[in-house]
Parts: sequence; C-alpha cells; structure tokens
Amino acid sequence: MARIIKNGTVVTAADTVRADVLIENGIVTAIGTTLELIAPHDVEVIDAEGCYVFPGGVDPHTHLDMPFGGTVTADDFETGTIAAAYGGTTTIVDFCLTEKGKPLSSSIQTWHRKAGGKAVIDYGFHLMISEINDQVLAELPDIIAEEGITSFKVFMAYKNVLQADDGILFRILQCAKQHGALVMVHAENGDVIDELIKQALASGHTEPINHALTRPSILEGEATGRAVRLTALADSQLYVVHVTCEEAVLQIAQGRLEGHNIWGETCPQYLLLDISHLELPDFEGAKYVWSPPLRAKEHQEVLWNALRNGQLQTVGSDQCSFNFKGQKELGADDFSKIPNGGPIIEDRFSLLYSEGVEKRRLTLNKFVDVIATRAAKLFGIFPQKGTIAVGSDADIVIFDPSVKRVISVATHHMNVDYNPFEGIAVTGEPISVLSRGEFLIRDRQFVGTKGSGRFLRRQPFGSAN
Amino acid sequence: MARIIKNGTVVTAADTVRADVLIENGIVTAIGTTLELIAPHDVEVIDAEGCYVFPGGVDPHTHLDMPFGGTVTADDFETGTIAAAYGGTTTIVDFCLTEKGKPLSSSIQTWHRKAGGKAVIDYGFHLMISEINDQVLAELPDIIAEEGITSFKVFMAYKNVLQADDGILFRILQCAKQHGALVMVHAENGDVIDELIKQALASGHTEPINHALTRPSILEGEATGRAVRLTALADSQLYVVHVTCEEAVLQIAQGRLEGHNIWGETCPQYLLLDISHLELPDFEGAKYVWSPPLRAKEHQEVLWNALRNGQLQTVGSDQCSFNFKGQKELGADDFSKIPNGGPIIEDRFSLLYSEGVEKRRLTLNKFVDVIATRAAKLFGIFPQKGTIAVGSDADIVIFDPSVKRVISVATHHMNVDYNPFEGIAVTGEPISVLSRGEFLIRDRQFVGTKGSGRFLRRQPFGSAN
Amino acid sequence: MARIIKNGTVVTAADTVRADVLIENGIVTAIGTTLELIAPHDVEVIDAEGCYVFPGGVDPHTHLDMPFGGTVTADDFETGTIAAAYGGTTTIVDFCLTEKGKPLSSSIQTWHRKAGGKAVIDYGFHLMISEINDQVLAELPDIIAEEGITSFKVFMAYKNVLQADDGILFRILQCAKQHGALVMVHAENGDVIDELIKQALASGHTEPINHALTRPSILEGEATGRAVRLTALADSQLYVVHVTCEEAVLQIAQGRLEGHNIWGETCPQYLLLDISHLELPDFEGAKYVWSPPLRAKEHQEVLWNALRNGQLQTVGSDQCSFNFKGQKELGADDFSKIPNGGPIIEDRFSLLYSEGVEKRRLTLNKFVDVIATRAAKLFGIFPQKGTIAVGSDADIVIFDPSVKRVISVATHHMNVDYNPFEGIAVTGEPISVLSRGEFLIRDRQFVGTKGSGRFLRRQPFGSAN
Amino acid sequence: MARIIKNGTVVTAADTVRADVLIENGIVTAIGTTLELIAPHDVEVIDAEGCYVFPGGVDPHTHLDMPFGGTVTADDFETGTIAAAYGGTTTIVDFCLTEKGKPLSSSIQTWHRKAGGKAVIDYGFHLMISEINDQVLAELPDIIAEEGITSFKVFMAYKNVLQADDGILFRILQCAKQHGALVMVHAENGDVIDELIKQALASGHTEPINHALTRPSILEGEATGRAVRLTALADSQLYVVHVTCEEAVLQIAQGRLEGHNIWGETCPQYLLLDISHLELPDFEGAKYVWSPPLRAKEHQEVLWNALRNGQLQTVGSDQCSFNFKGQKELGADDFSKIPNGGPIIEDRFSLLYSEGVEKRRLTLNKFVDVIATRAAKLFGIFPQKGTIAVGSDADIVIFDPSVKRVISVATHHMNVDYNPFEGIAVTGEPISVLSRGEFLIRDRQFVGTKGSGRFLRRQPFGSAN
Repeated sequence: MARIIKNGTVVTAADTVRADVLIENGIVTAIGTTLELIAPHDVEVIDAEGCYVFPGGVDPHTHLDMPFGGTVTADDFETGTIAAAYGGTTTIVDFCLTEKGKPLSSSIQTWHRKAGGKAVIDYGFHLMISEINDQVLAELPDIIAEEGITSFKVFMAYKNVLQADDGILFRILQCAKQHGALVMVHAENGDVIDELIKQALASGHTEPINHALTRPSILEGEATGRAVRLTALADSQLYVVHVTCEEAVLQIAQGRLEGHNIWGETCPQYLLLDISHLELPDFEGAKYVWSPPLRAKEHQEVLWNALRNGQLQTVGSDQCSFNFKGQKELGADDFSKIPNGGPIIEDRFSLLYSEGVEKRRLTLNKFVDVIATRAAKLFGIFPQKGTIAVGSDADIVIFDPSVKRVISVATHHMNVDYNPFEGIAVTGEPISVLSRGEFLIRDRQFVGTKGSGRFLRRQPFGSAN
Repeated sequence: MARIIKNGTVVTAADTVRADVLIENGIVTAIGTTLELIAPHDVEVIDAEGCYVFPGGVDPHTHLDMPFGGTVTADDFETGTIAAAYGGTTTIVDFCLTEKGKPLSSSIQTWHRKAGGKAVIDYGFHLMISEINDQVLAELPDIIAEEGITSFKVFMAYKNVLQADDGILFRILQCAKQHGALVMVHAENGDVIDELIKQALASGHTEPINHALTRPSILEGEATGRAVRLTALADSQLYVVHVTCEEAVLQIAQGRLEGHNIWGETCPQYLLLDISHLELPDFEGAKYVWSPPLRAKEHQEVLWNALRNGQLQTVGSDQCSFNFKGQKELGADDFSKIPNGGPIIEDRFSLLYSEGVEKRRLTLNKFVDVIATRAAKLFGIFPQKGTIAVGSDADIVIFDPSVKRVISVATHHMNVDYNPFEGIAVTGEPISVLSRGEFLIRDRQFVGTKGSGRFLRRQPFGSAN
Repeated sequence: MARIIKNGTVVTAADTVRADVLIENGIVTAIGTTLELIAPHDVEVIDAEGCYVFPGGVDPHTHLDMPFGGTVTADDFETGTIAAAYGGTTTIVDFCLTEKGKPLSSSIQTWHRKAGGKAVIDYGFHLMISEINDQVLAELPDIIAEEGITSFKVFMAYKNVLQADDGILFRILQCAKQHGALVMVHAENGDVIDELIKQALASGHTEPINHALTRPSILEGEATGRAVRLTALADSQLYVVHVTCEEAVLQIAQGRLEGHNIWGETCPQYLLLDISHLELPDFEGAKYVWSPPLRAKEHQEVLWNALRNGQLQTVGSDQCSFNFKGQKELGADDFSKIPNGGPIIEDRFSLLYSEGVEKRRLTLNKFVDVIATRAAKLFGIFPQKGTIAVGSDADIVIFDPSVKRVISVATHHMNVDYNPFEGIAVTGEPISVLSRGEFLIRDRQFVGTKGSGRFLRRQPFGSAN
Repeated sequence: MARIIKNGTVVTAADTVRADVLIENGIVTAIGTTLELIAPHDVEVIDAEGCYVFPGGVDPHTHLDMPFGGTVTADDFETGTIAAAYGGTTTIVDFCLTEKGKPLSSSIQTWHRKAGGKAVIDYGFHLMISEINDQVLAELPDIIAEEGITSFKVFMAYKNVLQADDGILFRILQCAKQHGALVMVHAENGDVIDELIKQALASGHTEPINHALTRPSILEGEATGRAVRLTALADSQLYVVHVTCEEAVLQIAQGRLEGHNIWGETCPQYLLLDISHLELPDFEGAKYVWSPPLRAKEHQEVLWNALRNGQLQTVGSDQCSFNFKGQKELGADDFSKIPNGGPIIEDRFSLLYSEGVEKRRLTLNKFVDVIATRAAKLFGIFPQKGTIAVGSDADIVIFDPSVKRVISVATHHMNVDYNPFEGIAVTGEPISVLSRGEFLIRDRQFVGTKGSGRFLRRQPFGSAN
C-alpha cells in the first residue's frame, strides 16, 4: 500500500525540511510536495501537521529474552519490540549470548528462535564473545559474511563469567580489522571490581549503593583507555558501549584525536540519573543497578557535551529489564546478586528528544544522528535504516513535540513492574510509528502484528563510516 | 524553468541515495523517482547517470577584490566567482575589510559595490574587525540584525595593522554572544612574529622560506589556545580560521572536550602542501606564502584525522590571489613584503574530493559536510544553502567521479598567473553547476551571467548548530 | 667569633642529621661531633637540643619600600628585614622597580639607597622590566655581569602600567638565554582583566570580591601557558611567580614534561587562604587583595601536591604590605584602587613548616628545598645561601618544633596594622636566627644591627640548576 | 680505623662543597676542615685532590644468582657485587624470587643463602610476588616488620609465568598502604605481548629484533597507566621499574600531577642504547634483549628530560647478566627463548656521570640523587645509605672526573663474556671505593673481602618521602 505523510517537518541527521514523504512497498520513494500526483490512486494520506517526521529510532544495544544470573529478562522479543515501537524505535540490534564450548552458529540459531515470530520491528544481532580459540576464530569470517552479524562484543568485566583477557580482546580486534567487523567493548576493570565486591561483602556492605561503590569510574576510565590502546595497536575499530563518566570520555576523545577509529555510546540513564538513586530506601536502589553504575551528577554534563561536540556518537538503551519483585529482589541480601539492567527501550527516544532538543543541548539533526543514523551507519544497516531518504525503508516516527506527559510504569508498555524514569516529565510523543511503511503504532495504539519484524543481515564494517 | 536531474546519486551530509531531483523556481521541490509526473510539462531533464549530485560548495573564507599591502588581489568578484563556479562552489562568504575611524556601514557599502553586478554566485560578508570602540560596539547589533552580517573576524596577528589585543577579542566575543554572531579568529601570536621578522631581516634572511620560519606552529597553537580560553570565559562561540598544525588542533579539541562552542577550519593548501614548497628556487617559494604558513609534512595527517574525527569541521579556501609577476615579486628582496595568499577558490572542492573521498580519508557524507553543509549551518545560511533538500536553493554540482585530470594554470579560470597545485592529479570533476536552478556551468562551460549572484542576508548565529 | 650549634638536628634539602655545626668568621666550617676540638678556644656553644637547625629561609619575592598606586608599602628594608629575621628568613631578593625612560642603572642605584644602611639580612635585587628598547637591551648584559642582578621580571598584567607585550617578553627571554639570566613572569592576561574591571565598575560592582571576580583563574592559566610557549620557542628559562591555581600548574607541568626550563613559585596565602576571605564584611576583604587573587579552596590541594611532587619548586612571600587604615582604604569605593599585596615576609617560613611538615604534606627536606635551597640555586646565590654546608654562610635558624602559637598582628614585627593569617595556629617557632654567624634573633629577641645586611651580587643563571 | 678523605669535593643530592670527611668506625662523623684535630691519632689520610667524593651508588634493581628460563644469571653475589664496587656502587637491593605454593619466608631464606658469605657490599631484598592468596597476605606484614623487606614487585607481563592479574596488583597495593611497603611494578601488557609473540613465531619471525617488535612501547604505556590508576584508587604508593618510553613517562607524570605517590626508574641501557642494536648481525642483537626492550632513539631525550625535571626519579641497572655463549644462544632459533637482561651493575654509575653530568643534562646534585639518594629514601635505607652525612655509613666513592676511558668486556669485572656498552667512551672513573669506611677498591684494585657485605633490614615505606 502507498502512503503519503503530509505537512510534517522531515528531519534527518543533516536536514530539517517541510515536505511530504511518499511511501511505496515499504520504501520511501519521494520527498517533496504534491506527491499525490505520482502516487498510486489508492494512496493513503496521513496528516502530520505540527509534527516532526523522524526516522525510526535505531537502538544498538538491547538484551531481550536474555538469561542472566539464574533468571531471564522480563521482556522478550514480543513485549520488548512492542514497547520499542510505542517509543519510536523501529530497529534494534540485540546481543546474542554465546555459550562456551559450543559453536557460535548454535547460539545464533538460539537467538533466531527467540526473535523469529515474535519481534514486531526489524532486528539484527551482535555476538557476545566470551572465549576465543581456534574454532571460534575459524567461525568468525563466515558469521560476518554469511550470517550478517558484523559486530562482536567483548567484556572486560564480569570476572570468571564473561570477562575476556586482553589477549582475546586484541585478537578479536585483529580479526575485526581483517574481516570487516566492529568490536564493541564493555569497559570496566573486572579484576579489581571483583576484588572490591569481595571486600565489600566481607565487610557486610550488602546494600545496592555498594554496587556503585565497588565499580568506581576510575576503573571504567582505565579499561576504556586500555581498549583504545589495543585498538590503536591493532589499527582496528572500536565501539565503547554505555559510557558513563568523564574518565572514559577523555580516553575516547584522546583516541579519536590520535586518528583512531573509536566511537562511544552512552545511555539515557547516565544522562539523566545519578548515583543518589542507588541510595533510595526500601531496596528501591536496586531498580537503578546498571553496570557500569550510575555516577555522580557532574558526569552528566560531560556526557551531554560529548554528544554535542562529537566525542560520543550514539545513545543506546542497554535495555535489560528485570522485575523489581522476584528478580531485582534476588539481591536483597547481596548487592552483587541484583540482576543488572533496566527497562529503557521504550523511553530512550523521547527522553533524548525532551532533554536534548527541548533543552537545547542537541540540535534536531544531532538528535536524529545519535538516536538513529549513526548507529545504523556503524552497524552496517544504513541507508536501509536510520534515515528518511529515497530508497530507505519507511521506518518513520510521527512525533508531536507539543505533547507534555509523564513517564510511568502505569502507562508504559514494557513487561516490567517499574520504570526508572517514573515521574519524569517529557515534552513530545511518538503519535504514529511505521515500519517498512506499515503502521505499528497509529494514534498511540499498537496496530502491528507479532512476528512482523525481520532479521537484518548487516553489512561488514566500513562501508559508510 | 523546471528541471529534473535524473539518474544521479544525490549526496548530503547524511545520505547517499539514487534519486532524481526536481527543481522549480530555483528551489528543490522533490527528491524521488518518476518526478516528471509532478513537474511542469516543459521540464528540462538533465541526465546525471554515473555522477554524484552534490550540493554546491560553500566556501566560508574568501578575499576577493581586496587591497593588501599596497596592491589588490588578482581576482575580483567576477573572475573569482566564475572560477568558484567552475570548481563546484556556489556560495562564498567574503571578508569585508573595515577601515579604522569609519563607520562599519560605510565599509559594508564599499563591499556591496565590489560584489554587486559582478558576482555570479550568491555571497555573504563577514566583517573584519580591527578596532573596537563605543561607536563600533554600538553599530554591531544593527549589522547583525539589519545587514545580515553575523560573523566578525578578529586578528591576533599582523601587528600594527590588523592585530587586535585580547581585550578587543574578548569584547567581540561578549558582543557575539549577546547579539547572536560567530567570532572568527586568525590565531597567530603577532607580537612575537613581528619580533622574529625583524630579527630575520636584520640578519639578512630575506628569502621566502623565512616567512615560515618566523611564524612557527607553536605560535599558532599558543594563540589558538588563548582564543579558546577567552571564548570559554565569555561563554561565547568561536570559529578558528585556517588551522594548519597539530598544536592548534589540540587546543580546539581541548576546548570542544570541555563543552565549549569552538569550531575549526582548515584549507586545501595545509592538507596537501608543506613547508618545503617555500624553498623552491628562483623565488618560486613566494607562490606558497600564506599566513599561517605551510607546515612540516607530518601536520597533514593530523589535519585529515581532525576532519574525519570531528576536531575540525570545515574546509575554506582562504582565496586571496596575487600574480607571481608584479605582485608576489614585491617581496623579492624582503619576504615580509610578499603578499600573503593564493588562488584556491576553484580547486578546493575537487582537491577535497580527490584527496579525501578517493583516498578514503573521508566518507562521501563527511566530504559534503566539510565542503558545504557545516559552513552553511555555522554561518546562518542553512538550509537555503549547503544541502540538497526540499525547499533549499537548487545550488547543485553534477560531479563525475570517473574523470582524471591535472590541475594547472593553463586550464584554471582564476585571474592569476600560477596555480599552487600545478601538476597535481585529481579524480573527479564538476561537469555542470547550477545556482538557484540555473546553469552556471554546463558541460564544463560557463553559461552564467555576470552579476547574477545575490547577497545573502545571514541568520544570527545559533539557529542550526 | 666562632660558634658551635650543638645537639640539634641539622636539615638540608637532602639530609637530616643529628650533628653539631661549627661556625667561624661567619662561615660554616664543620659539621660533626666534638667540634670543640677544632674550634677556637673562645668558641661560643649554643644548645639546640630538641630543635631543628635549618638553613635560613630565602625569600625570592619581596617588595619593600615600593611605591604602588600613589602610596608606598608599609614596610621598608628595616622593618621588613627585621620581621623576616624574626620569621626565620635570612635572605631576600627584592624587586627593583625600573622607571620608563631612565637608565636601568639609575633605578638600581635608587634601590641600593633604599636597602643600604637599613637591611639587617642579606639581599639581592631582581629587576622589574616594563619597557624594552635598544638602550635597555644594551644595558642588560652589564647588569648581569657587573651589577650581579641576574633575573628580570616581566608583567603580563597591569595594562598601561607595567604590562609588557609578548614581543617584549620574548626578547627578554632571548636576552636571558644569551647572557645567563632567569626571566620571571607575572602571568595574568592583563588585557582581558582590564576589560573585566571596567565592566564591573561600570555595573557598580565596587566591593573587594570583585577584585577576584575580574581576575578569574582561567586568565592566569592562559598567560602561564603563553609564557611557557614563548620560553620553549626561545629555548630559554622561566620562573613563574605566585602561582595560584590548577590551570597554571597544568601549564607549568606540561612545559616541564616537554623538557623546558620552567619553574613555578607559590605563596603561603594561596596555600592557606581562599576567595571567601574577600567577602568579609566591613571592607575587611581588602586585606586579602593580592594579584593574582585568592582562589576557590579546591586549588589549595593542587598547589600542595605540586610542591610535593615537583611541578612547583619554591614558596615566596610576595611581601608587599599596606596598612588597612589609610592604604587599603584607598579602594573603599573602588576595588581596583585597593593596593595589592599583604604582609607575609615574617610568617612564610613558619606557615610552611606547620602546614607542610606537620601535616605531612612535605618532608623536612622538601620543606628546606622550597623555603630556602631551590630559590638560592635558581637565583645564583647557592651555595653561599640556602643550605647548611661547609663553606656556606652561616645563615641558620634554630627552630623549636614543639612550640604552639597563634599568628597575630599583636605579636608580629611587620610595620602594618593587620595580619592576613590572624588567628591561625602554627606549630614550631624560630627561636634564634643567625646571619653570617651573628645572631639577629636570640631567644626570640632581635639583637641585630640596622644596616648589617649586605647586597648579594648574584651569579648568572645556570651554574647550579 | 679512622680515615680522613681530604681535599675532595663532597657532593650530595643538595650540596657540592670543598671539604674533608672524617670516618670513624665505618661512620661519617664530621665534614669540614682540619678534622685531624678531632680524629684519632692513627687516622689514615686519603688525598682526594681533584676528585669528587660521592656517596656510594645505590642500585635498587639487581638480579644476582637468579634462575631464569632454565639457566642462571652469570653473576652471583660475589662477582656481581665486586663488579658493583669497581663501578662505584656500594648498596644493592636484589630481587628475591618467590616460589608459588611455598611460604615467602622460605624463598627469603634461599636468597639469604645466596648472598650471605659472598656479597662484598651491603644488600637488601625486594620480594617478587607472583601469587596472592590468604597465606601470602598473612605473611606480608611480618616480612615488612621483621624481615626488613619493605618492597614488593608485581609483574604485569610474563604471562603464565610471573604475571599477576589486576586484582592481585590491587590487593598488593592495598596491603602496601596498610603495612608500609612500596609496590614495584613491571609494566607491560603481558596478555597482548604473549599473543604477539605467538603470532611472530607462527610467521617464522625468530630473530632477536622480534623481541622488540612484539613488545611495542604502547603496551608499556598502557600498563603503566593502568598501574597508576590502580594506585590512585588504592591511595597507595607505586614505583615503576625500568621505564623506557615516552608513553610510560606521560602516565607517571599524570599520576604525579594528580598528587599520587608514583615514582619511576629508568636504566642506562634505555638512556644510551636503542632498538637498532637488536638488529646487529650474527645474533649479536641477543646481547641487547631486555624487557621492556630498547626503543626508538627519540625516547632517550624524553627519559633524560624526565630525570632532570623530576618525572622520573631513579636509575637502576636491572643487572641480569647472561653469557652470549651458551646462554643468550638458547634463543638462537627463537627470540622468545633468549634470556632477558644484561650486565650493567658495574657501569651504571659512570655512564650516568659521563652522559648526564658531563653532557650537562644533570647537575652534580641531581646525579647523586638519581644514582644513590632517592633510591635509598624510597627503599627505607636512608640516611644510612645514599648520602655523605654525619651519622651515615661511610660508603664513599672517590671519583676522578678527569679520566677518559672506554668501556669494554676486556676490562670489566662482571662474570660475563660481553658488555653491551662495549666501546663507549666515558669521562670519569671511581678510583677508590669504601664501604662502611673500609676500602673495597683502592687505586682501582679490589682489596675487599668476600662476604663482607651485610644484609640491610629496611625501614617501612614513608619515613623519608
């Protein structure tokens, strides 16, 4: 079916124009005026007067249906992607957890089973690497070329669980350079954190705040700098996930200044929340347990500046939801047992618009870049995703910037019993959301179909950066 | 007249799409396919098969018809803008020289007389400030609001001629913040340079190379850092023109990292040429006299990296042409009398494409950003200029990336007797160039009309950054 | 007369030893035990049991009997040096103010007249340079070689009064390198400060706190960095006086890291007091007006760290006393008319001991280095001054570290009606002080003779650094 | 027996004085003139006319009689300390290798057996830590307090052999802070180096140069920065051994600038030799295999500057000698099997004097500081060792600065078949060397007694720093 979105203001990472958008067969085919003349006669006209017409958000960092510490995230590919759609996000790249000792391909199949038939928006996979051996190295080129999985995540934290040593990180960086992949890194010094956790627990410090105290920002800065140095040595490419602090921003900026291919992502939680949330009474602090943890408030301005001035490039959600009841509570007596993560997939887009554009920290174009375009480029799905341009998938958000509303668990669509941004007022709301030209959200209601989302076979790194 | 540019690859700062562009009344009205259906019946169809369709270049840094040291630049607004058009540049912002003791408005009128009736492309003016007093300060708000001149240049060099002291620079920065202008700075330490020049001449060192030796990069770094500090203190905005060296890039990067509104421009000459050119025999070195001077070769990679990774944002030409015969020769016995500057307005666009995109230092989108979009945004003429988008002026370059050619005075269109890039092979050529929908260059021939260029009344700083 | 100081703990910049010191003819001739055996039979034995035996303090930064803004400092060479002696300082290097248009030698003669016949401790002169012309440059080599004045101070602040431009600073640096002098710099950006002062006054902000607000630390950092760059370019040597803030420390550290000959001095006021003192009611803030001004408290720890870890090397007093009544009051209606400076010459030594050594920020040896040795070396009077070593002048402080006392105008010996450290408790006191082997202070009483101090003809820079 | 060293120039880290030194019972008892009057009548008078009288060198970094890779160092405590004495070094702190699974005390006993009865100069031990468990942690306080071993070395390199992970390093830092020890670190990223070595060997690159190529300076900088961050987090103290490169110096300087307790040591080989030595033909490159490796020549000036300006503080030898024949040859087919290290213990002192003082890179006093005093202070043996002061051990070098000689295996006294500084001309020679007042070297001949060296029970960290 053909559709024309009329009278809106179309925004891309470069441009802001009053224009209509013609969609045919799920693809944008024209941007301009009087497009009815070239549209099929049965074209549906949608009025976007007073609204921004944004490319659908691209969330490069989600964990759906993921086992973690004996439990599983509260949102799966169905609830998670429906919530994403409500929030204006039409593409995710989810992390496929690999299992030691098994072929990577088997983990990928597991992930396809989780997503297929459930997701309502399009999705790709990153691979989380926890071991490197000759078999794994042998598999990787095929996974890039055949499976369309072109980014690998390495953990410098979670000792004895996911943590890779520097030799593994370095080999992955070399492999990524050779075969065209982008290495993602969770940058915290796991060895020292492990030690600090043991010491805290041995001293009887079990409350949620200790999660933050045992993961000080200096250890994120250290690990970030280390990853940057290894990338420089390998002459490879690196994407630092969930950057939270000034120390890490400095290391990324230094690497970029030296000319290396380094990018950094932050998340709404680090831009808006701070360490004091971990001290909320009645174990409420557990709702704010992420790794890396929330930081002192002064880091927030550093992160905003870094987005604006280009030391950081993207904003992911790090969606990884656990219910407060029954899941977060696993750590009631031991902060280290609190499942890490929170529900953000739905509000990422609106929080960034409201705190970024409305508060004049980001231009409209920069907002689109960090919420959609840059991630699409870095992860090999541009220009299919991440922009509104002729030939691109018609993944489109009709966004009313005049709405005032308050974020709340009472109204959100994630399958989880709290919202970390509860009570925060935002300006603007996605009114309607289309994926490949079809409505997922229409006038604030989900009208899509479970399982309509498609797997994105991504391009090797490098074509658009 | 309406035109459709068909079959090309349209490139903006964000997107690269196979699409056609419809132009009506000098404005882009649609981007898509089968646009003939919505075009007037007499639309002219231009085939761009195999070509890039770029927004016309925006050159934020030209000196046309400018007196300097007792002579006048070889190119005026006619020859200069025709050459610009040949090269793919459709907008310039030229520097209006002010005269001490006269109202700014009188200097602006002078500049309007120079450009009006001559320029073939659209143009704006920056104001070069050399003194600040109560009268000047009183005039500035009007000049921003009424004259549409929203950027002021301050010189930290050229002692006793143009050099402003730090107090003046600071007041301009304050004024710019208050009234919405962007301060541009020529950052070299003029006091020390003046001293070094005197010492060189006193020692009998009169050859062109001494121009570079008396302006070491450490003094550009120093002045750049100083301007950044003053901008931080004034919480204002700064654009550093013609950045040449690592020391200056570091200072700009540091200012940006701290969250300040700092941007930097470099020029093709600093990206491609180096200090060794100043040592050419037979006074040929004089052709390569710019201020700041050409640097040691290792600075080039720093500048390219800075463009790619975002520490620098634009590439200007610093067009300021003088004939070798009769003009550069004024300094035959005294390097300090060599007129500073060279002819670049024509080759800026192609040099950047060839050395940047072809050599994979810049993506296509980044190329468009640095050659056109970013300058248009910073200087208040976006989205009218600097992009190909619905509603924008149809300033368009049809660029054939398959052409191989050699830059030469024999073929260039600037009114000057040498070309500093003589003999350099480039890939790609602007085949046809349109300004507001009309051909200036058609199949490599100028078909425009003298005086067709219009003055651009620019927006105050801030609307698009 | 010969003297033995027995049973004390002799401390130098390197060593801390239980030993006796034999003094003959004003010179240390032996350090050891049973020195009576080699002493003249009429040797006087002084018991220093329980005391440190320190070299007399060397204060590299004093302004005695100096005209400033229409008034004259409250302390002259008599009262100032007596107070110095009480405090444990036995050498000063005072700033000789030069007059524009007059030969430097005439200013030096003026200063000799001020000091001669009055000073009770030995003294040298720095020269304050406010203009450079061929005559001045011609005089300098002689002044270094013949007059024994081997350090020159240049002001980057005090616009239209003392401020030199960067060309002058650079020439002085070149001259210093050639002839063996050390350039001292007051590093604040005077142009911008001048502007800020005008703006503050124009807005009716006349209170003392505006002195600090119009001289922000960013402008000290800027000027310090500028001086460091110019020193690097001249390959010369630089001593930055009265460093107050992190921004300046960073610039000095960077210069040293690059291998340049850069040293920095701080003062007790910057280590102990902060900007809040300028807000004291009843114009009391005027007592705390120094240039550069007192800073926010967090800079203090940076300065202490820099002394300990070697980014700063000395502590001067910047003694420049004005009475609150009648002098500081000149600025009652206009902060810019408050005479800059305060009385510190007496308490510098004890404050540093108490806050430095007692609070474990500095070792005993480092204390001696910053309070005496390093300045003596840098300014060409070592080993005559600044240490306790065989062959050195017997300038010695017998210091009882067990005394607790409170600093107060009621007990100090400076000729001024307030003490900026009023009420601060210190540990330790100079009990007796000798200059060239003769008692100036004996059991806390001045027993010296007016005019006994001698002019120190200093060595060219470089012999001991 | 009493001795007077007459007519020399006594140099300490602070002072340079013409004076005589009286020695009684192995201790310096007086410095001055006419000391015969207080000396026993049978005092021996030694004429040092024309000579410097230096404190004996303190070498904080030696490996004597140490097993390494299936072989044992060529020098044991007898040959090594005799060579040290010839060279002017009278104190060493040797590394006691611990064995995993055994009590630390047993390793210490092993080391006492190696040294006792053999060493001719006084010696202390550092402990090389390769594992941390509860038993080891329980032992450490006693080792500090009872055994007088107050410094522990941790390896960040030598994967699967000596390498500790960051958790262990952090715990050692915490322990050191609590109990008063100084942590030493070998800072190279062992994980990545291990990988690079495997890759080089797999590619058939077996020659000595690959030793350097697989240990690039970026990995030393990275590890140094990491150790500095961990020290900052633990608020502890760190001594970085054998710093070789700019990257590492920058990290140490940054840590010191932030106020942390960080010190750095370099070695003569890094100051004088460079990576080109590893490319010598006929496997001669193997003589120049140290870890970290020799670097590109431009690092040398950085290291000299760092010693002069205080970013580095000491110069150790890293003595670890292996014969070329039979030992270095173990790596003839595989660079990774070449025993690391070389013979430097003898020439460290003279090389530093000649290249440092004679070439005006270091003052005499700074030379003494880096060659003797600073190490004695940091490692808890000051003022017994490291200076010439009343009460200190009379460990003294009479050094003739007028001698010109050439370093050679033909004349050296180390038990090894080559000298890495072969053919290098030096100025100055230790003529006579005393340990606790007794001659070890007299007129260039060893006159000491095997086994006369005593173990130094060192003070906890902190008393003198």
